[in-house]
Amino acid sequence: MKSSAQLRDSVEDALAHIPYPTQPARLYQPIQYALTLGGKRLRPVMMLMAYNLWRDDVENILPQACAMEMYHNFTLLHDDVMDRASLRRGKPCVHVKWDVNTAILAGDTMLALAYRLYGDAPGLDTFHEATIGVCEGQQFDMDFETLANVSEDDYMEMIRLKTSLLFSCSMKIGAQLAGAPEPDADDLYHFGRLLGLAFQLQDDWLDVHGNPSTFGKQTGGDITENKRTWLLIKAFQLANQQQREDMRSWMARGEFKREEKVQFFTHLYAQLGVGEACQSRVRQLFDDALDRLDGVDVPDARKEPLRDLAHQVMGRQN
Amino acid sequence: MKSSAQLRDSVEDALAHIPYPTQPARLYQPIQYALTLGGKRLRPVMMLMAYNLWRDDVENILPQACAMEMYHNFTLLHDDVMDRASLRRGKPCVHVKWDVNTAILAGDTMLALAYRLYGDAPGLDTFHEATIGVCEGQQFDMDFETLANVSEDDYMEMIRLKTSLLFSCSMKIGAQLAGAPEPDADDLYHFGRLLGLAFQLQDDWLDVHGNPSTFGKQTGGDITENKRTWLLIKAFQLANQQQREDMRSWMARGEFKREEKVQFFTHLYAQLGVGEACQSRVRQLFDDALDRLDGVDVPDARKEPLRDLAHQVMGRQN
Repeated sequence: MKSSAQLRDSVEDALAHIPYPTQPARLYQPIQYALTLGGKRLRPVMMLMAYNLWRDDVENILPQACAMEMYHNFTLLHDDVMDRASLRRGKPCVHVKWDVNTAILAGDTMLALAYRLYGDAPGLDTFHEATIGVCEGQQFDMDFETLANVSEDDYMEMIRLKTSLLFSCSMKIGAQLAGAPEPDADDLYHFGRLLGLAFQLQDDWLDVHGNPSTFGKQTGGDITENKRTWLLIKAFQLANQQQREDMRSWMARGEFKREEKVQFFTHLYAQLGVGEACQSRVRQLFDDALDRLDGVDVPDARKEPLRDLAHQVMGRQN
Repeated sequence: MKSSAQLRDSVEDALAHIPYPTQPARLYQPIQYALTLGGKRLRPVMMLMAYNLWRDDVENILPQACAMEMYHNFTLLHDDVMDRASLRRGKPCVHVKWDVNTAILAGDTMLALAYRLYGDAPGLDTFHEATIGVCEGQQFDMDFETLANVSEDDYMEMIRLKTSLLFSCSMKIGAQLAGAPEPDADDLYHFGRLLGLAFQLQDDWLDVHGNPSTFGKQTGGDITENKRTWLLIKAFQLANQQQREDMRSWMARGEFKREEKVQFFTHLYAQLGVGEACQSRVRQLFDDALDRLDGVDVPDARKEPLRDLAHQVMGRQN
């Protein structure tokens, strides 16, 4: 059984040793750049940990783990183009450092490379589910931008696809590659799903309540951009007529002082108890996730790394 | 053995019956739109014909044939975004009818759907070769736009990847799915490669020498846009100092009368015998392609549909 740090090192090493042709350089350089911007390599590490519940030879599935990370980085690259983002992990996005066409084509190639890395290994169907579902999630997210009302159910389904599906599919693929029994693979799928949902709601919460020095970005970004988050949707549910009109009015303004808008929403969320409601939902999802992990039929000690990782993902110390 | 028309109908029918979710509609509608813009369905038909050399149950490989067509249409969709094209087969491009973000995401999804259609069938490695190689070809093509000199070899390698590879891989995959002997699959690969190269050079030639009513678009488009074509590269090879300077000067002008520029190059090409040289290269490639088909170890009569198709692709009656 390997630790989270050991597995992450194996993934970094495998990613660094993917063989690329030297030409065309303008295609493969941005791909290597995008892949080395860092990140916690959560998804491939989760895949290796799931596999590790049954088997020790994790190096055997590094190509599939890299395929998942390659796919994930492809989605970040194209999302950044669509969002006109300028920075990714503190460095210029590919479409800024090179140009938009380079970013589109490099992303396309990363998706094809991800499939070549995956090969015809077991769990290919689950990989398809992930690659197609995340695109669906991104479309729902884009659709929400122009919708007046987004229901909580629609929002949860969107983040299930856009954020959570790579967690659930990474877990399930790890199990499938290990030849695990289907009910266990299924439990791990739902462990990943629930953990992913908890992670995203926590992220929504941190945008308002986070400590900028540990959160890694300025708080209030979602509020400034009118981003549909769990907090905003919940606030609309709980607000009275007047509060709803005030929210709509703030969201419709083209020009505003950032701090004032952030302050208005932060204050309203506090009044409505939206933050506590979110934390309680996060706890529930997180507990349900751990319950699913408990259901997996392997000795409890083998699950320690996954349990640790789950706490780590949520930014908890234990 | 099925005729070209029968196989094309099977492909159209299979494409029309790919099951899509209804939501998100803004994702699946552009995909269906892009797939029904028409076209000759050359690549899937070639795959079915190659398979048909050995086996009659072509319906068994329709998912893989559709995967190839889906992939091809994904490349057209993203190429149109990168080229800022407005029309595709006389209809608005996806990024015009919807928007750029929709086109990027719909294309991404088509690539993932293509892989799901392919599944884990034999020939998956060849499919990877195709999907990655075409991206490389597109990058080389984009690189050429800013290069002062493109050699004939570099140009031939670019069109081998960008245009010809889907022909060669379609042929080889058909053979692999049929369980054909490797030397035969290899002959078919090269038949597709040489035919694809002949097809692209013929297309370059037609841009200058074609009859607009049968060519389907206005002639001189490549000249107007300074597109690196076989004709232009050959002309630079054969031209004297003065002619080269004249070409460069025309290519550097921001404003010009379209007819005058087209007339200058058309006249120069005629002077240098570039058109004839191109035709002779096309004939040679085409003959080499048919030689490769001759080498395939099946009764000659079974090859008739492929031979017919090859002539059809080149716009020849027999």
